[in-house]
Amino acid sequence: MPGPTLILPRYVVPVRPRGQVLEDYGVLIAGSRIEAVLPEREARTAINDGPVVELPDHVLMPGLINMHTHSPMTLLRGYADDLDLKHWLHDHIWPVEARHADAEFVADGTRLAVAEMIRSGTTCFNDNYFFPNEMAGVARDAGMRARIGLPLLDQATRWAGDFDEYLDKGLAVVKEFAGEALIDFALAPHAPYSVSDSGLEHIAKVSASRGLRVHLHCLETRFDIEHSLHAHGVGPLERLERHGLLNAHLIAVHMTQLDERDIDRLAQSGTHVVHCPQSNLKLASGICPAPALLKAGVNVSVGTDGAASNNNLDLLEEARFAALLAKGASEDATALDALQAFDMMTINGAIALGMEEHIGSIEVGKQADLCAMNLAAPQTQPVHNLFSQIVYAASSAQFTDVWVAGKRVMMAGELETLDEAALLANADEWRVRLRRPAKQREVVL
Amino acid sequence: MPGPTLILPRYVVPVRPRGQVLEDYGVLIAGSRIEAVLPEREARTAINDGPVVELPDHVLMPGLINMHTHSPMTLLRGYADDLDLKHWLHDHIWPVEARHADAEFVADGTRLAVAEMIRSGTTCFNDNYFFPNEMAGVARDAGMRARIGLPLLDQATRWAGDFDEYLDKGLAVVKEFAGEALIDFALAPHAPYSVSDSGLEHIAKVSASRGLRVHLHCLETRFDIEHSLHAHGVGPLERLERHGLLNAHLIAVHMTQLDERDIDRLAQSGTHVVHCPQSNLKLASGICPAPALLKAGVNVSVGTDGAASNNNLDLLEEARFAALLAKGASEDATALDALQAFDMMTINGAIALGMEEHIGSIEVGKQADLCAMNLAAPQTQPVHNLFSQIVYAASSAQFTDVWVAGKRVMMAGELETLDEAALLANADEWRVRLRRPAKQREVVL
Repeated sequence: MPGPTLILPRYVVPVRPRGQVLEDYGVLIAGSRIEAVLPEREARTAINDGPVVELPDHVLMPGLINMHTHSPMTLLRGYADDLDLKHWLHDHIWPVEARHADAEFVADGTRLAVAEMIRSGTTCFNDNYFFPNEMAGVARDAGMRARIGLPLLDQATRWAGDFDEYLDKGLAVVKEFAGEALIDFALAPHAPYSVSDSGLEHIAKVSASRGLRVHLHCLETRFDIEHSLHAHGVGPLERLERHGLLNAHLIAVHMTQLDERDIDRLAQSGTHVVHCPQSNLKLASGICPAPALLKAGVNVSVGTDGAASNNNLDLLEEARFAALLAKGASEDATALDALQAFDMMTINGAIALGMEEHIGSIEVGKQADLCAMNLAAPQTQPVHNLFSQIVYAASSAQFTDVWVAGKRVMMAGELETLDEAALLANADEWRVRLRRPAKQREVVL
Repeated sequence: MPGPTLILPRYVVPVRPRGQVLEDYGVLIAGSRIEAVLPEREARTAINDGPVVELPDHVLMPGLINMHTHSPMTLLRGYADDLDLKHWLHDHIWPVEARHADAEFVADGTRLAVAEMIRSGTTCFNDNYFFPNEMAGVARDAGMRARIGLPLLDQATRWAGDFDEYLDKGLAVVKEFAGEALIDFALAPHAPYSVSDSGLEHIAKVSASRGLRVHLHCLETRFDIEHSLHAHGVGPLERLERHGLLNAHLIAVHMTQLDERDIDRLAQSGTHVVHCPQSNLKLASGICPAPALLKAGVNVSVGTDGAASNNNLDLLEEARFAALLAKGASEDATALDALQAFDMMTINGAIALGMEEHIGSIEVGKQADLCAMNLAAPQTQPVHNLFSQIVYAASSAQFTDVWVAGKRVMMAGELETLDEAALLANADEWRVRLRRPAKQREVVL
């Protein structure tokens, strides 16, 4: 275990207590944990002649938590745009995935995604894609914290042929990575419309018996309701409830089609909601009523969605969209403020993951998952209000240093655990590779 | 006049012809102008042993045009947030401006704004604030192109006491800066509700006789309509029409309250519309129907608004919001695509300014107003579609080099005409200065 390190930023935003800004404080980390948060002088005494990271222009905050993404889809960034969800999926994304989304694609795309997320201050991501073993391996090797979804659906893909195989292969991956400090897993059924009733029941049982979260696309568009009413005679939320899935283990993503009764139901069941405003706008899916959910007591966090629908993994930008869209959509400029947006990209994600004892805020004993932003840039001066500056004005390019479980994965703007030049060259190879077969022997996408 | 320089990026996006991407082309600039756009080999022959700027990972595009801002308000960034427009203006912004918005405030705030805009790829801005002489001087000295608004309203401020004085002082500024290559002016009445009928008539006459554009906040919120109906018996557009202002000289900003008849009226009159999506969302003002306007043939460009309501001057982010919000608000993912967003941040602004012969695209004979973005970053790889990558994925922090009228004002990420460290220190002094009086001798804001 490495000895203690002192980080000395200009400001610390611990997130808990809410709204607190500490000026000229130090954060002492030892091993994977936060050992102390002290005024500068005391902190310097405590570290004695140990290592000090001086960040005189920076704000130190908890690492951001990206609550919904499909990491490997970075390789499909910009592959098909300006289309609605149905055509985008059926005519472009699914066909190219069917041809190319193998283990190598998943590993390479995840590596690119992890680089992008670390650069933009993210220290933990909640993912859902095929080949979860590849994703888990890449995240572990890069020193990134991840909750990897085990994909579950009825349709065959390159990863598995039917629901039972998805589940068996997924649980084998859980076993393979048992004991890894940074990696754990969730059950990740694709969506209510792509999983049968018996599948849902099975998932509810496994979730309860193994204490696994359920990470699910839900009510992304009106289609979800229409399909459920047609096929099952009830809406998706009622169907999930029937099968024992509407509870505090459920992380329901998108949720753009909600009425007041749905919101009550989510609040009472303790279901967690993940808001992906950019993806929902770009695909014209609808707008998640984040202010009403928060008011009702629902835990709402933010996710970027995959890079093919966003088109980046910049969680700060997502929090900004969440705040501004909430104000515009509800015609109330006070609907969702900078402090709430801050919670949504940090502690609320930790709560949804069931990890609020370990991550999401800078508190003694928690994991040292931290990111530092350099405020010495025109767009973040003067600092009248630190929360406003970060949520409404800063660029994620201002993150310079990132720690995960006490390990510095970005130092002064350079990635420490990934070879960025190699990643970018590899991405360019995929650009060529993903295009070529379509021209030569298949329908042009 | 400096000798010719060759810029050799990986890609050139000239904007005109629309959708064109040139790979391995060079742009030759001489003096203030673009002299040639040639394939790399021919370009190298043409420059002979003259200077070559090699940008192997970059896309070169026309400099962005910020069509609405209040530059000096950078000093009020984050000063008051999460409030509706009325309380924000009346209880916070106007009182602090009344105390502090003097010539020094305007010069210092504009300098900070120009630094931020150059860094984010902007080469021309259309402004509206008090002390236009100070703004013009700062822009000229920094080598930045600007259309400076001459403020016109009935209410007294530190700049002028009544409408006639505003106009006289404004026209004196026009005279003072006559012959400056980068600086020109527009008439900038604050809003229909803050200028009398006789004022509007006067503005129409001066606009026609001197060929000056009119830069006007219009229909920002429902209040504008209510006020106009109450005070004048007609809506704002009809009132502007009556006074001879609804024409191709008018640059109408915000325009969130429009019905179909209004849209027709704007199209037929040739009025230019500036869309400020982030400001309108943040202040819950409403949503400008950009897709419907574009469809009707109205020229729509984008502006950031001032940093107190946005909170940055990042025009690329504004174009991204414009595209995504259009899709979400109209429930149509094809409503406004990446190419249209690209036009809105470049050529459409040039058209609104009446400068489309000079700026807004990379064409031979036009001014060399250029910006280069480094695509070698995780969030912009792989490059399946360059327009998508820029509009939906890139960060404005990826701009590394900027030229205005052939002069390189940013080189490899360093500002060439401004002392950035001094600017940031000065901004921090204003943070203290703007706060102190409120605590000591005035009402707390």
